[in-house]
Amino acid sequence: METPWDHRYAQRTQRMKSSAIRELLKLTEDPEVISFAGGLPAPDVFPVEEFTSACEKVLKDFGAQALQYGSTEGFTPLREMIARHTSRYGISISPDNILITSGSQQALDMIGKVFINPGDRILVEEPTYLGALQAWNAYGAEYVTVPMDEDGMITSSLESALRCGVKFIYVLPNFQNPTGVTLSLQRRQELIEIADRYGVPIIEDDPYGQLRYEGENLPSIVSMDNEFRRNGSNEYRGNVIYLSTFSKTLAPGLRLAWVIAPTQVIRKLVQAKQGADLHTATFNQIVAFEVARGGFLDRHIWLIRRVYGERRNIMLDAMEELFPPGVQWTKPKGGLFLWGMLPQGMDTTEMFKVAVERKVAFVPGTSFYALGGGENTMRLNFSYSSPDLIQIGIERLGNLLKEMVIAEK
Amino acid sequence: METPWDHRYAQRTQRMKSSAIRELLKLTEDPEVISFAGGLPAPDVFPVEEFTSACEKVLKDFGAQALQYGSTEGFTPLREMIARHTSRYGISISPDNILITSGSQQALDMIGKVFINPGDRILVEEPTYLGALQAWNAYGAEYVTVPMDEDGMITSSLESALRCGVKFIYVLPNFQNPTGVTLSLQRRQELIEIADRYGVPIIEDDPYGQLRYEGENLPSIVSMDNEFRRNGSNEYRGNVIYLSTFSKTLAPGLRLAWVIAPTQVIRKLVQAKQGADLHTATFNQIVAFEVARGGFLDRHIWLIRRVYGERRNIMLDAMEELFPPGVQWTKPKGGLFLWGMLPQGMDTTEMFKVAVERKVAFVPGTSFYALGGGENTMRLNFSYSSPDLIQIGIERLGNLLKEMVIAEK
Repeated sequence: METPWDHRYAQRTQRMKSSAIRELLKLTEDPEVISFAGGLPAPDVFPVEEFTSACEKVLKDFGAQALQYGSTEGFTPLREMIARHTSRYGISISPDNILITSGSQQALDMIGKVFINPGDRILVEEPTYLGALQAWNAYGAEYVTVPMDEDGMITSSLESALRCGVKFIYVLPNFQNPTGVTLSLQRRQELIEIADRYGVPIIEDDPYGQLRYEGENLPSIVSMDNEFRRNGSNEYRGNVIYLSTFSKTLAPGLRLAWVIAPTQVIRKLVQAKQGADLHTATFNQIVAFEVARGGFLDRHIWLIRRVYGERRNIMLDAMEELFPPGVQWTKPKGGLFLWGMLPQGMDTTEMFKVAVERKVAFVPGTSFYALGGGENTMRLNFSYSSPDLIQIGIERLGNLLKEMVIAEK
Repeated sequence: METPWDHRYAQRTQRMKSSAIRELLKLTEDPEVISFAGGLPAPDVFPVEEFTSACEKVLKDFGAQALQYGSTEGFTPLREMIARHTSRYGISISPDNILITSGSQQALDMIGKVFINPGDRILVEEPTYLGALQAWNAYGAEYVTVPMDEDGMITSSLESALRCGVKFIYVLPNFQNPTGVTLSLQRRQELIEIADRYGVPIIEDDPYGQLRYEGENLPSIVSMDNEFRRNGSNEYRGNVIYLSTFSKTLAPGLRLAWVIAPTQVIRKLVQAKQGADLHTATFNQIVAFEVARGGFLDRHIWLIRRVYGERRNIMLDAMEELFPPGVQWTKPKGGLFLWGMLPQGMDTTEMFKVAVERKVAFVPGTSFYALGGGENTMRLNFSYSSPDLIQIGIERLGNLLKEMVIAEK
């Protein structure tokens, strides 16, 4: 049916594409498909009982306030809790440095709205998080990419990339989506120093930082940058905007995340958010506060680490056993994803179609490349499927890969 | 503290202003201030008990699904319920014509993102809903305005406005925010015919349609437009995009609203929403579905009508008694707001400062004028304050107005 809206779309609408992942996920809704495609937390670890009592308590204690309009900045006790939690890592921030967003995706959207003019160049890792590209494409962003290896963004390539002039650097230092790779301590330091030399600020996106299954935690870029600039105080210096979320530690269905930024940036983000959705759901913020307080969140993260760490091990062991030679993959120390690299010339988008017929799914890696490429790569999620299904799914993928490698020869 | 972000804002950020209302609301947080400023539903009518049982039931029956990521389009049973409800009004739509949004504010933002190029002209009522201006300013919208009287937008002024070329017409036909005025049946018909003649589509924003306290319901513009174009079927013709919300009938703190649009427009809005917040909170959608189903919402709306209708009457009676001659106001048949008009030359922004000192607040009307003006107007909310406080607040305003009118002479 034709309508007068059809020829009225804005130019930016041409640049918006439906997320390949979300479209692929629809193909994988068949319950027989073992899906390593989504970025879904395991439903088994959601604290359903704690949510049930928190909802009851919040509606009893807060009643109408929990259902009423709230402030754009977010529920103050929740922002205070996040400020206290952040200070554990040696950065002193106040609730005025925090904006609660409707998921990290909204934080990315608001950052795009406030900072990106059409044609502005953003420096991203190659590959990088698809959701950031999707948010920023709508504002006309262009991209400059820096390749990665097993230690994250290759900082020796950073200077030549910064010489083209970029608005900011976007980096996911911990267990990156999609590769699972962690930026090494030395590279973090180099990133901060080079960025400082070029006067370019950084956005640190850290949804998975707390989900580490081996090794020592590395300091966040925001805290290292603060240390780098310190003048005797641990006051937040504002060069790095930091994003995190409750989606991976509590539950994604609440859509709750936060931005840490200089107060003047928070004010601009608040203005953008007023026009975007007024504020994040009051009820969800108070319930999350109620669930997270009193140390529950820390204890709960221990459980998540145990469950996901085991699943990661099972997936890595099965791949070792069942994938043919010539296929390589990352060994993430945390997070939700690992990254498969097939021999050059093989195409994971083609492979995806056959895989779904064989009832196993992943995300073809090319979606994560801002400037194209990565046709031979794939993202595998290890948090969502049970250990048994991980074993069977990897077996299915292994068989398919073996056939492909043989056919290639 | 200076940071490298300070000189990196996008050009559009200059156009974003913090909502005057939301800034003013901060001044009125003093609990002694009787506030007619907000657009807040009465907390006394929130169905707290029903929410408590719904949360428990949803977490028991849906468990992890309610806390997991969901589809961008929204929870299917909720979309089906809205589709059924809409068909009561003679338009046949499917769930594919519906997108669930994080409040109507997000629907306005997504419409801006998908349709508005910088410099595009949007036709709005004068005055109009501030939130729409705030959403669309960020996309570089320009405005053409049509004045209003007690029957809504003056349609005889519409043709000359449409001759400048506009992308779409934005209209709030029922108990408009800010004026409380309802577009008459004849004007609705004229609007549809003139828009059709110029080939311009319409956005009908209807947050208050169900909150009528006297008189007969008028058909929606979307249903009248369908009737106008009908070819024997009541299939949705797509010329009018329709917005509504659960904020005024259930609770605003859930941030739940919806858009009805042609399927191809819904697909574009879905792409925009993917980049904006992935999806609206799953839990909230299932809980709202659970609360609204089985006829509860219809019964609950009866209660809201009774409470708000009584408060409207009290405010109107008090104004009649206590406001000095020369001050005029609308007598809304529904909704949350009425509109005060002071003698020309008087300034409600100046008056606001004194009013807050005297512990009563309203919104100066000028914020609602897309092209400036309205310095002598004010918006008063009658849904939020209790009958006693309405009486006292209007007395305080009346005293202040009397002093101002005398000083003016």
